[in-house]
Amino acid sequence: MPRYRLTIEYDGTSFAGWQKQPSVASVQAALESAFHKFTGEVVDVRGAGRTDAGVHALGQVAHVDLARVWPSLKIREALNFHLQPHPIAIVTCENAADDFEARFSATSRHYLYRISNRRAPPVLDANRVWHVPYPLDHAAMHLAAQHLVGRHDFSTFRAASCQAASALRTLDGLAVARLGDEVQITAVARSFLHSQVRSMVGSLKRVGEGRWRVDDLAHALAAKNREACGPVAPPEGLYLARVDYGTPSVAMPDEDADGE
Amino acid sequence: MPRYRLTIEYDGTSFAGWQKQPSVASVQAALESAFHKFTGEVVDVRGAGRTDAGVHALGQVAHVDLARVWPSLKIREALNFHLQPHPIAIVTCENAADDFEARFSATSRHYLYRISNRRAPPVLDANRVWHVPYPLDHAAMHLAAQHLVGRHDFSTFRAASCQAASALRTLDGLAVARLGDEVQITAVARSFLHSQVRSMVGSLKRVGEGRWRVDDLAHALAAKNREACGPVAPPEGLYLARVDYGTPSVAMPDEDADGE
Repeated sequence: MPRYRLTIEYDGTSFAGWQKQPSVASVQAALESAFHKFTGEVVDVRGAGRTDAGVHALGQVAHVDLARVWPSLKIREALNFHLQPHPIAIVTCENAADDFEARFSATSRHYLYRISNRRAPPVLDANRVWHVPYPLDHAAMHLAAQHLVGRHDFSTFRAASCQAASALRTLDGLAVARLGDEVQITAVARSFLHSQVRSMVGSLKRVGEGRWRVDDLAHALAAKNREACGPVAPPEGLYLARVDYGTPSVAMPDEDADGE
Repeated sequence: MPRYRLTIEYDGTSFAGWQKQPSVASVQAALESAFHKFTGEVVDVRGAGRTDAGVHALGQVAHVDLARVWPSLKIREALNFHLQPHPIAIVTCENAADDFEARFSATSRHYLYRISNRRAPPVLDANRVWHVPYPLDHAAMHLAAQHLVGRHDFSTFRAASCQAASALRTLDGLAVARLGDEVQITAVARSFLHSQVRSMVGSLKRVGEGRWRVDDLAHALAAKNREACGPVAPPEGLYLARVDYGTPSVAMPDEDADGE
């Protein structure tokens, strides 16, 4: 069966998350329903990241097998038609190799977390940012974030529900920058634990507001204990921005989870 | 009476525009209602630009007179509370001089127009951009735009309903740039005619899609005739981004209109 690779944008606000679940709206189910309307097939759309309820995607990647060959542009157009009125769009559709797996072939995942850091509530960015109405020290947050970069046991920063066999992960980058009233946090790794980005962002916010010192983040990591984590950041500020496929610098066979 | 200057962000999607009108929702009426809830007064909120239905603002400016002195931060907080659930936020509130007029004291107005220039429909930016699903030549658009910069009779690019006495305006800047899938147009002038930015953008799009040559925009301007204008761009891509107050380089007493 021919395999296709999809790059997908969605507004996660109205979904219970990426993954199919009984009797709630999911991005995966909406995509599979659109494929059913298009080809009449019952397909399995497999995503690179199982984003939680309320989490957005600028560049989620998924693969799907269809019964027959279609021009990839035709798939994109037909899906975007049948996805209406869901806030989901197929940005690109490409032919993929038979062994391409959106989840397991990924070599890096890029997340973006947006904080609106001003007194006034977000209006044009409602449901697109976390509103933190008191000043955050983004420079201290960036410094603290560097304690988390590298290969560590991230038990402190994983959800209780995380099903990954190991909490060892290699965080390739975690950067905090300010653009006017907005603080943006970017996180890059081959894979993330469940709620890892939101857990790290929630703890970084503690540093930004001055309740934690920079070193407190290192201590939280060293504790390897969920109770050492700051309050988890809300989903509306989080975006699965990009998934890369290529030769990883170092392949870590135990890092097979799929994050947020 | 003490006068206050407000900087206001709003999502224009659900409003019939800035200006109060009988039996429709307007930004001005929502603000005046919030002031009434706050102080019990019936106030007149005067804006720098009368944005049309569906047009957004990142930095609309308005002034208001209140019966007594309030701390300006208290006004901002109270208004943001009473404005809920309207998609309007007071970003700043400052004390203003008695002769400060949001409309007439403005020395430059900055508009931003966003075009989503990709095949897939906008999702995270729904109602925030104009979706043009075929490639636009942004470099040709920028070249053509330079024909409009300067002091001209903009009769071609004004709405039939425009009430300004003269169509002479000085356009200080009109730039077209691409950021990935997005084409952004920025327009700066002391004042604009009614629908001038959307009229210019609609004509620039003709250049971008290759239906007009660069020189055709100069011919359209020289025609001084509404019929020479391209189809007017829709409101959802337009933002009143900023209004400046200061010494204008050249004060043109006939340029007193307030634009989009």
